[in-house]
Amino acid sequence: MTYISGWAARGARQKLEPYSYDTGPLGLEEVEVAVEYCGLCHSDLSILNNEWGLTQYPVIPGHEAVGRIVAMGDQVKSLKIGQRVGIGWNVNSCMHCHECLTGAHNLCSKAEPTIIGHHGGFAERVRAHWIWAIPLPGTLEISSAGPLLCGGITVFAPLIAFGVKPTDRVGVVGIGGLGHLALQFAHAWGCEVTAFSSNLAKAEEVRGFGAHRIVSSRNSAEILKVANSLDFLLVTVNTPLDWTSLLKTLRPNGRMHVVGAVLEPLAIPAFELIMGQKTVSGSPTGGPAVMATMLDFAARHHIAPQVEHFPLNKINDAIAHLAAGKARYRVVLDHVDRTDFGVRSI
Amino acid sequence: MTYISGWAARGARQKLEPYSYDTGPLGLEEVEVAVEYCGLCHSDLSILNNEWGLTQYPVIPGHEAVGRIVAMGDQVKSLKIGQRVGIGWNVNSCMHCHECLTGAHNLCSKAEPTIIGHHGGFAERVRAHWIWAIPLPGTLEISSAGPLLCGGITVFAPLIAFGVKPTDRVGVVGIGGLGHLALQFAHAWGCEVTAFSSNLAKAEEVRGFGAHRIVSSRNSAEILKVANSLDFLLVTVNTPLDWTSLLKTLRPNGRMHVVGAVLEPLAIPAFELIMGQKTVSGSPTGGPAVMATMLDFAARHHIAPQVEHFPLNKINDAIAHLAAGKARYRVVLDHVDRTDFGVRSI
Repeated sequence: MTYISGWAARGARQKLEPYSYDTGPLGLEEVEVAVEYCGLCHSDLSILNNEWGLTQYPVIPGHEAVGRIVAMGDQVKSLKIGQRVGIGWNVNSCMHCHECLTGAHNLCSKAEPTIIGHHGGFAERVRAHWIWAIPLPGTLEISSAGPLLCGGITVFAPLIAFGVKPTDRVGVVGIGGLGHLALQFAHAWGCEVTAFSSNLAKAEEVRGFGAHRIVSSRNSAEILKVANSLDFLLVTVNTPLDWTSLLKTLRPNGRMHVVGAVLEPLAIPAFELIMGQKTVSGSPTGGPAVMATMLDFAARHHIAPQVEHFPLNKINDAIAHLAAGKARYRVVLDHVDRTDFGVRSI
Repeated sequence: MTYISGWAARGARQKLEPYSYDTGPLGLEEVEVAVEYCGLCHSDLSILNNEWGLTQYPVIPGHEAVGRIVAMGDQVKSLKIGQRVGIGWNVNSCMHCHECLTGAHNLCSKAEPTIIGHHGGFAERVRAHWIWAIPLPGTLEISSAGPLLCGGITVFAPLIAFGVKPTDRVGVVGIGGLGHLALQFAHAWGCEVTAFSSNLAKAEEVRGFGAHRIVSSRNSAEILKVANSLDFLLVTVNTPLDWTSLLKTLRPNGRMHVVGAVLEPLAIPAFELIMGQKTVSGSPTGGPAVMATMLDFAARHHIAPQVEHFPLNKINDAIAHLAAGKARYRVVLDHVDRTDFGVRSI
């Protein structure tokens, strides 16, 4: 039997503890990756606390894993042992549905998330179908690459999917883990970039990420001052906002795109959509080809998350830090110390 | 002074009475059209009752006018006296904004609706900027063409604007004045067509308009039986429905498009948008070029509204008929009897 050791939670709001699980044999199309770094994402918290009702305990979270391939099945294509790859939100999909056949593997109804019914990257090793192990460009700084694999692709994929153009005026609502990456991508994309933030004290930092102007996201009067000015508005927050005023910031044909899992239904006035032919949409992460494109674009434009590092054995401190809203802007767990891994079952 | 006689309301929920107004001189870019037929649209009722807070009384409603050009200014292009044209929701727009310059004149912020601050087609004549007087194909049956100019373009324009493909599976919610036209357009477009109706008793008729299957729009369990089956769902009703279940009828990348002016905000769960990369949008009528394309397509495919005719002097009966929900499916006022027009001011 083969074991992988990591850090797991056995129930909602419980601390992670050392844990190891029997992997079973490696699949013919699977790779096994020795994790070097793994980002901590807000959706790790959602899964840990079973906010979406999908969690299967015990669970080793972590779905922004960077590392080297240490084993691979006979049917793996294009990858090789020792190659450095990234693993994001998904580790598998059906490969034969319309979505998988058209590059939208992330929309496959059978897609298998890395941390639902599968153990993630806060462990010494993690497995994935080879298609979901994305080669990292050699020029990408690996110690901060992890957050690109979920946070980064989540804000990048909509630029591709909805044809955002360099001539467009783009707004980003919420300048946190996702938003500070979105600003960088939109700036490098050539767009005019407006940041909507609840914390105007960090304006200088926000400009540094690429914003040309900053607007309070909590003040409807301030929001309305930039009415009719944006083509694309990316919403990265997961709390309700004044959606009507935010829709008014869009020009005709504009799109408000939601990637934050706001639990309360969005109240959208039909008139706001109709009068300016406006759109509200959402999307989850991105497919493997778009992930590769994103990593390439990030490397070329030196786009990187601003990260805080914790050693993996301080994972519970890292989680508390993120949950308290203190992360500036993403947290990465470093797996360098191999003694992090106990061999204790929960 | 030049007068035009018609039928006007002087306040909300008041009957229309004969009325005439001084037109002033014809603008250099204006045409004047002698109305032969004019459709009665639900938004005439909304304006008559000031539901949108935009009405300027007295108002002559009617914005689906068909007739012949009887006068034109010196700067009018491409049209000629005696030519038969249609006038829809708008009679003018600024002609120089981004939207006007890109064919989306209907999204111009200065667009002038035919029946807001301007008098409409329940009159002997109506004026419009020449760009908004759309030539009618010679093969189009003119006695039923009126409803294409607002109802028809409203459901046709989204097929163009959002790239609906003949391979798509299209749903239409609400099989009334707009919906029965949408079914015909989607069928002629080559799509698989699903009708969602609150009245399954008219199933045979609905199939005759082009629906391949019919689903109850008021029964969530029935709606969910067609989950994950549609690419494009056109909502023509103006009453709240089970939006969450309707969104579930969409396949990944699907779009729910709203053209009915539902006054209550749509409650849209962000998760429904995110998980399947879905979109909710809206649009108002269409631009002049798309109107011409629509009329050409309708003529080619013998697409026509099913209409009930009233003589213009029975306009109040026609309004009561429509307001009672009895119209099957659109109402057209016939202007043939020239004695309809009194010359009395309100």
